[in-house]
Amino acid sequence: MRVRADLIVENANELVTVACGPRTGGFMRELGIIENGSVASFGDRIVAVGPSAEVRAKVDLTPDAQVIDATGKVVLPGFVDPHTHLVFAGSREHEFIQRAEGRSYMDILASGGGILSTVRATRATPASELVDLALRRLDIMLCHGTTTVEVKSGYGLSPDEELKCLRVIRELSERHPMDIAATFLGAHAVPPEYRGDPDGYVLCIIEEMIPRVASERLAEFCDVFCEDGVFSIEQSRRILEAGKAAGLAPRLHADEIAPMGGAELAAEVGAVSADHLLCASPGGMRRMAETEVVATLLPATSFTLMLGRYADARAFIDAGCPVALATDFNPGTSPTLSMQFVMNLAALGMRLHPAEVICACTINAAHALRRGDEVGSLEVGKIADIVIADVDTHLKLPYQLGTNFVDKVVKRGQLVVSGGRRIW
Amino acid sequence: MRVRADLIVENANELVTVACGPRTGGFMRELGIIENGSVASFGDRIVAVGPSAEVRAKVDLTPDAQVIDATGKVVLPGFVDPHTHLVFAGSREHEFIQRAEGRSYMDILASGGGILSTVRATRATPASELVDLALRRLDIMLCHGTTTVEVKSGYGLSPDEELKCLRVIRELSERHPMDIAATFLGAHAVPPEYRGDPDGYVLCIIEEMIPRVASERLAEFCDVFCEDGVFSIEQSRRILEAGKAAGLAPRLHADEIAPMGGAELAAEVGAVSADHLLCASPGGMRRMAETEVVATLLPATSFTLMLGRYADARAFIDAGCPVALATDFNPGTSPTLSMQFVMNLAALGMRLHPAEVICACTINAAHALRRGDEVGSLEVGKIADIVIADVDTHLKLPYQLGTNFVDKVVKRGQLVVSGGRRIW
Repeated sequence: MRVRADLIVENANELVTVACGPRTGGFMRELGIIENGSVASFGDRIVAVGPSAEVRAKVDLTPDAQVIDATGKVVLPGFVDPHTHLVFAGSREHEFIQRAEGRSYMDILASGGGILSTVRATRATPASELVDLALRRLDIMLCHGTTTVEVKSGYGLSPDEELKCLRVIRELSERHPMDIAATFLGAHAVPPEYRGDPDGYVLCIIEEMIPRVASERLAEFCDVFCEDGVFSIEQSRRILEAGKAAGLAPRLHADEIAPMGGAELAAEVGAVSADHLLCASPGGMRRMAETEVVATLLPATSFTLMLGRYADARAFIDAGCPVALATDFNPGTSPTLSMQFVMNLAALGMRLHPAEVICACTINAAHALRRGDEVGSLEVGKIADIVIADVDTHLKLPYQLGTNFVDKVVKRGQLVVSGGRRIW
Repeated sequence: MRVRADLIVENANELVTVACGPRTGGFMRELGIIENGSVASFGDRIVAVGPSAEVRAKVDLTPDAQVIDATGKVVLPGFVDPHTHLVFAGSREHEFIQRAEGRSYMDILASGGGILSTVRATRATPASELVDLALRRLDIMLCHGTTTVEVKSGYGLSPDEELKCLRVIRELSERHPMDIAATFLGAHAVPPEYRGDPDGYVLCIIEEMIPRVASERLAEFCDVFCEDGVFSIEQSRRILEAGKAAGLAPRLHADEIAPMGGAELAAEVGAVSADHLLCASPGGMRRMAETEVVATLLPATSFTLMLGRYADARAFIDAGCPVALATDFNPGTSPTLSMQFVMNLAALGMRLHPAEVICACTINAAHALRRGDEVGSLEVGKIADIVIADVDTHLKLPYQLGTNFVDKVVKRGQLVVSGGRRIW
């Protein structure tokens, strides 16, 4: 049966489909690569994938169809970035210098810097300006191949300010080609108003913020920064359960700086994803694997914090967890908008195979956002989010350091980036 | 006295002049920053630098002068990349995977991989194709802010093939806006023809190659990969002294993988620069400082080799050595064309201050190529190589990870990059 198509990307040296998932263990190396492959779409959906001759024989191109020649190039699914703090004002380069001189992240936070300095700047900035700042960031992300991104609130830390940030995220969704998953992260830090009374703030989150977020349908997920000195396991559990009861799926900053049992909590509450995980216990890894919690690892944060080590990606893969990667983009601990930089760190810092890296940035990252059926692979029926990379084999992708390998990006069937630049 | 100008970059939020040098110790943090500053040029030379109002009052702009508004931006000297292996064919992504699985760099080299695999590919490639490959790489470098680059031979390893590569470098100089310093690195590895007879190859370098390189004026520098299992201290000394006698200034791959006394040798022979230096001894550092050998550090190589550590930049600074940074761009151990990635690693991996990083990528890197009087700072009389960066303070430059901060590049007074793209 022939199908109509209004866009075709054809003759790819390698068409990396990454079909099916979430992928665990050795399956993370199986990318479903088609040599001399093509992918065609109609509207925002993929209608054909396969060897170039077969796809050409199968599709009827519309008269104004866009034909993109990918000869010599690698074509793969758009990247999914499942953990970002994209909406904020201000900058924190002085903290980077302090850390280089030996101050710790938690020490800076405890003295009113870190997240709290960004909270001050974000509260003082009108929503329209936050939108403008974030739109520029989304442009850069798209130009580097990211087509779906999770965005958290968490620099408001009061009912009105958290809602302001979540409305900013909604406006971004309406105004930018990027697909955005919104996460409520009121529990990002204890705000100054509740200094010394974290339980009071937890109550504010549960009784004031979550109901408003849910009733305005401003978020799909609820997240907590569960960490020694921030929110305890018990506080995190209460917030995530309250979110769940209100229809917000749980996800969790877990076991980043100290071993807290965050991985175990993620499994217990049925989190979609647990993130960071540098200090996760072997038992926590096993529980996550059993309950199919995605392990979302954030090597750019470890790099920026100069920890000298990364989450043990290999242990998670061996334990049977689906491993995803994300930027954790934020002004204090991960100033990168590019999944390509994360890929570099995953391949060279975490010693993952290029195929595992690609899987972790596409299909597994999509599952970390409950979008595994919609994006993250090149399959018929899925959203046509396609990256054309200026390399001849996927094996090179994570080893190109510091420069953008993206030539073109197709977002929902529309060519939005060409020559690495936005054209929408 | 008023001066004519045909280009002006004005109203920079910060004009980073990096005046004078080479810089050592605490002076590496003094960047000579002018707030609301401008720089003007006529032909290929800078004719005025200073506060915007003063520069405007001082220059007579030609009728067709180019006026570049840098409001809100940082303006700084073009980056100098003083160590690259830019001319080669082939790729080596499989070795990256082998290293991730535990094989060492020296083990791969000893079994005929590494440099020798690139030698096979480069020998099999005609000069015209090597030129095309390298021109594309120079384009990317320029778009990322590099305006002067050192390029080594070293993938030929026979008299004819080394000459071929050096002629390729000469052709690049003629065809590309980039300023290029050519280095003869016949002593990059012992070629298969001399396997088991390294002294025979050293003799070939000294008696056949150096005289031809010198008589054709194909190189300015002579370099040796002085390393356990490659060229010994004694062999390196003989080659560098022969080069010096023929007019080639010495530079040296020193103490990268094993402590060899390379830093001491560099001081002894009066090398312009000693490079890598992860295993340099304290005595070697002192000797380098006394003899004003620039310490050119290559953190992207340490990162790519997954060493988990970097050269001790702080120790070199404290010892009084001028520290420079370079990409070491090559297909096996440093696949990056961007000095910005090197800056990231220097700030976060080596814990250098942003000002030290900038100094190491500009004036000190220029001195590492004996071009400190021509490039590396924004001063009247110097070549007008200017980067306009899309950030508001130089403190942010080394912390923007994975994306290009360059908006515009002026090369010898010509605007060659705009919006991060080549426009020449």
